Amino acid sequence: MRDAGAAAQEAFDRKTKPRGSLGALEAVAVRVAALQGVAVPPRPECAIVVAAADHGVAAEGVSAYPQVVTAQMVANIARGGAAVSVLAREAGARLVVVDAGVARPCREPGVRALRFGAGTASIAEGPAMPRPVAEAALEAGRGLARELAADGIGLVAAGEMGIANTTAASALCARLLPAPPAAVCGRGTGLDDEGLARKVAVIERALAANPAGDAVGALAALGGFELALLAGLVLGCHDERVPVLLDGFVTGAAALAAARIEPAAVAAMLASHRSPEPGHALVLGALGLEPLLDLGLRLGEGSGAALALPLVRSALALLNEMASFGEAGVTDAGR
Amino acid sequence: MRDAGAAAQEAFDRKTKPRGSLGALEAVAVRVAALQGVAVPPRPECAIVVAAADHGVAAEGVSAYPQVVTAQMVANIARGGAAVSVLAREAGARLVVVDAGVARPCREPGVRALRFGAGTASIAEGPAMPRPVAEAALEAGRGLARELAADGIGLVAAGEMGIANTTAASALCARLLPAPPAAVCGRGTGLDDEGLARKVAVIERALAANPAGDAVGALAALGGFELALLAGLVLGCHDERVPVLLDGFVTGAAALAAARIEPAAVAAMLASHRSPEPGHALVLGALGLEPLLDLGLRLGEGSGAALALPLVRSALALLNEMASFGEAGVTDAGR
Repeated sequence: MRDAGAAAQEAFDRKTKPRGSLGALEAVAVRVAALQGVAVPPRPECAIVVAAADHGVAAEGVSAYPQVVTAQMVANIARGGAAVSVLAREAGARLVVVDAGVARPCREPGVRALRFGAGTASIAEGPAMPRPVAEAALEAGRGLARELAADGIGLVAAGEMGIANTTAASALCARLLPAPPAAVCGRGTGLDDEGLARKVAVIERALAANPAGDAVGALAALGGFELALLAGLVLGCHDERVPVLLDGFVTGAAALAAARIEPAAVAAMLASHRSPEPGHALVLGALGLEPLLDLGLRLGEGSGAALALPLVRSALALLNEMASFGEAGVTDAGR
Repeated sequence: MRDAGAAAQEAFDRKTKPRGSLGALEAVAVRVAALQGVAVPPRPECAIVVAAADHGVAAEGVSAYPQVVTAQMVANIARGGAAVSVLAREAGARLVVVDAGVARPCREPGVRALRFGAGTASIAEGPAMPRPVAEAALEAGRGLARELAADGIGLVAAGEMGIANTTAASALCARLLPAPPAAVCGRGTGLDDEGLARKVAVIERALAANPAGDAVGALAALGGFELALLAGLVLGCHDERVPVLLDGFVTGAAALAAARIEPAAVAAMLASHRSPEPGHALVLGALGLEPLLDLGLRLGEGSGAALALPLVRSALALLNEMASFGEAGVTDAGR
């Protein structure tokens, strides 16, 4: 498989351009080639998966928005009015909206119900969910990846929606990295200083209330339904050799859990953008990923991954469609 | 027109997302709104203009590639095998290839002949072209912008092809910024240390051989046919209120000349990516532009601008198509 990456780089080096002049786009296509064991992977069809769920910890006042916004936004995404809805159309990608456990079930057409509860229990008091529930959500994510791959999808963008889920993601990262809560914790969608201090204190309580264990245990204790499902999606993408573009901090936390469950799965991951959440840089560092974009996005719902999709697809189109020096009759300076 | 920018920001602030959470995408759409004097500019049709020409200074050994590669690459771009050809298809953009003065005329179908000579004279010995020729090339660029705007194009990506044109661009920037040649001069498409030293020396000779004057004079003395045409294109885009995405260093040098001819024209400019050429950061700083991408691209031919097109178009699609809190029935936390 590493040979396929080298073969992809050699193919780029024969294309009508100075060696290496496509920068990060060459690196991303080479990574996909290595994942797939194919020198020139086809230009992929794309899907964006947005997994949504509610979090008991929202009751601790850790978000600028009330919990009802999760269900409202899932409906908005499915109806086409959210940022990721627009970006999916722009990218020509299939949008898959998953209700993994919103407090009130989303009955909007186009929302896929893979529910593991009506919101998690508060991580500040104990585990978010029993371990078997986390295992089931992981398996559902793997199943979704299998289904998308069988349906011809060759590139998945992963994102999430869930009021208070940066608190769960921060707790999960604090445990898995490990790192102090204050180092991973940010303002989410808009906390003030007081809110941020409250959020750090809640995460400290969550870590104290949930003893350390393995990565699946950490997902069950500190995660959320959408986090477990996304971790499974990442693992399933790796099984299917489908590259998965990670959105921001919350999706990154799910990917970190996936990597702790199955370290080889990192090979399937691509980082889309750098989030202003301080924990995101730590997660990207732990996964060894360099993001393609740095646009100051802090929206979630897969918006950053959706914006990076055309870059990854273009990288593979370039590898497939550019002429070589020989084909085009262009003189090669050999550099 | 500043009011239209403020109105665009207010429209974004009513959309179903935390305030400011689309980061640089909000800024770019607000900039387009201010340019056009319209709160919600339509999602644009796009064109990529690649202007090509040869440079007498190539005889000084300042490029890793021989001069014949300009004509070969223009044919390759027109036939669909170059990077920008692939990226234009990926972006769904019209590709306009202009022969502004390649040494041997390009007769490939799809190449637009707007020729101002068979390559410039060497800037190391004297002026690249007489001033009236530069004025004609500027006017041709303005005319092309008018034509594209009349044809419904609402966003232009600008790029170039021309062996040795980073030398001309470096000389032009050294004069217009002003800055020492060693501070602006980079490795172009692949010079080694010796080649870089030779290039700096050639630029010093060019500055000595061509007395300082106004910006049009600098374009005539130190520029190139494609540089003058692109400067005119930028000015014409500003006249037509069409935003123009600048590719890398060479296109940036042309835009700097345009800004020195008509300072208000900066309002039409958007920076696509950050090039590794050291002069590019100086040009972006002088123009007050922040690039959208930083992917280590050093290919030219409009490739970086082509990659940024979907980001700008998406920013405008978001402004047009996202639902407001009221429309979607989503609770607004007001932040």
